[in-house]
Amino acid sequence: MLGLDIGGTKLAAGVVDADGRVHSFLVVPTQGEQGPRAVLDRLFALGRKALAEAGAEPGGDVAAVGIGCGGPLDLDRGTLLAPPHLPGWRDVPVVAEAGAAFGLPAALDNDGAAAAAAEHCYGAGVGTRDMVYLTLSTGVGGGIVVDGEVRRGAGGNGAELGHVIVDRRGRPCRGCGGRGCLEAYVSGTSIAERAADELGTPGLTAADVAAAAAAGEPVAVRVWQETVAALASGLTSIVNVLEPELIVLGGGVTRSGEALIGPARAAVRAAAMTPAGRAVRVERAGLGDRVGVVGAAAVAQQRLVDGVPT
Amino acid sequence: MLGLDIGGTKLAAGVVDADGRVHSFLVVPTQGEQGPRAVLDRLFALGRKALAEAGAEPGGDVAAVGIGCGGPLDLDRGTLLAPPHLPGWRDVPVVAEAGAAFGLPAALDNDGAAAAAAEHCYGAGVGTRDMVYLTLSTGVGGGIVVDGEVRRGAGGNGAELGHVIVDRRGRPCRGCGGRGCLEAYVSGTSIAERAADELGTPGLTAADVAAAAAAGEPVAVRVWQETVAALASGLTSIVNVLEPELIVLGGGVTRSGEALIGPARAAVRAAAMTPAGRAVRVERAGLGDRVGVVGAAAVAQQRLVDGVPT
Repeated sequence: MLGLDIGGTKLAAGVVDADGRVHSFLVVPTQGEQGPRAVLDRLFALGRKALAEAGAEPGGDVAAVGIGCGGPLDLDRGTLLAPPHLPGWRDVPVVAEAGAAFGLPAALDNDGAAAAAAEHCYGAGVGTRDMVYLTLSTGVGGGIVVDGEVRRGAGGNGAELGHVIVDRRGRPCRGCGGRGCLEAYVSGTSIAERAADELGTPGLTAADVAAAAAAGEPVAVRVWQETVAALASGLTSIVNVLEPELIVLGGGVTRSGEALIGPARAAVRAAAMTPAGRAVRVERAGLGDRVGVVGAAAVAQQRLVDGVPT
Repeated sequence: MLGLDIGGTKLAAGVVDADGRVHSFLVVPTQGEQGPRAVLDRLFALGRKALAEAGAEPGGDVAAVGIGCGGPLDLDRGTLLAPPHLPGWRDVPVVAEAGAAFGLPAALDNDGAAAAAAEHCYGAGVGTRDMVYLTLSTGVGGGIVVDGEVRRGAGGNGAELGHVIVDRRGRPCRGCGGRGCLEAYVSGTSIAERAADELGTPGLTAADVAAAAAAGEPVAVRVWQETVAALASGLTSIVNVLEPELIVLGGGVTRSGEALIGPARAAVRAAAMTPAGRAVRVERAGLGDRVGVVGAAAVAQQRLVDGVPT
């Protein structure tokens, strides 16, 4: 499979086999402001380079193309509707475009669903039947596996796990225009912004805040504690609704590792209903930066080769 | 099927056919403080009376017994673990007891899951593939239908929809010991309690508050608005996670009808992510007080006759 991932900051492409092994992996900046035509041309060029690096030929070794992108999507038509991380993109027919570019069947999926498929098939979630994946990155997204399959909701746009509300009168959420969403507290953007606002120091990153919190800087400690509490609250709601065996946390914010996941895990296990809360595991993702490409490939494999329904 | 429902205040029994038609329906008070032995004896006596009223014989016209009860449950062993609405009940083997009492195969399910099955098979949710059921009653429970089937989570104790958090620093929640759960705002108990506290008038019911709010009494109006806002917030999280086509609201609190559901529907559709929020329907349950018995029967039908896995 050729996996393509359209992120807000990065485009990625790679050749992935049916066992999840990555035979090539390439990344370039998205530059979404160039508009869909220019960006898709660069994405497909990147895909051709990934095929060449893997020594793979469309139609020969490579059977299909998978594309992951943030929603909302129209899965039936294979179009991006209005991805918030790509301002101005509307109704972009990526499946038709990719199919034409590579002469292969193509499948589109939400990047959170694709990443959940990747972690479930090849990563931290192997062997689970009920699993939740969250990516804590520039924004917060995710995917859910219920009774062994990735579930996408009635129209393919469910699992917007960044928009579980933790405080209905809380911080405004840029992603959805509402208030108090998980994303408004635990995205890298939000962590950096809250610390920068309090300290009057623009240009901070979430990694800076994590480091300052680890060093005991009081404002960073407070922002970090709020981040952990909001994450735990959102995960508690998710556990109470879905009772997963496992929550997998990925994305750049999880580079802070157990400094975030450790206290969040303890709080979720204490706060979620018994017995679901006591049983749930909370672990870091297994596939790192390649999860998007592996997930896009996994979705193409499932849908276009194995015939799993969307 | 013989359906049995073990509620905190009422026991119910009825004979229900495979088309969801109710051939008999009887209710008595639970009196859970009498302990499991006495209560189960009265429940089974009620079941026998329901069979007699329907002119049905175990093994003849009636193939199985379904039992619905609030969780946590052990579905594999068929036991109630520690239902919060039945204080002091621990590890009660209701499936074995009912099987012995009626000489029939028996199945246990969470009452929320059973009610979701009932509404999905015979009520407001007929024809949907992705549906959420919430009961707003003394407590708040629910069930979820994903891709056409009731889903119960990894251990059969998911869909605790009353414990979706809407305000992580909000009101203490008696049901789970946490804070700011949906149940702490939209249960009949909580609606009555908040109004009674503010007015200094003990003994109010949620129906009294609804009536006073409709008449414009300022405290009742404020409590009602908070109830609607909390409900909308919890439903928004649920829509963002599950993207159901339909949310079905049942339980005593929904007797207030569109005074509750109307503004909650409008708020959810505005607050949930596009396109899921715009598409979701929010409707009142179709089966009224019989949903528990019909649901217990539906679960027995699915699991013991049709062979649907739990």
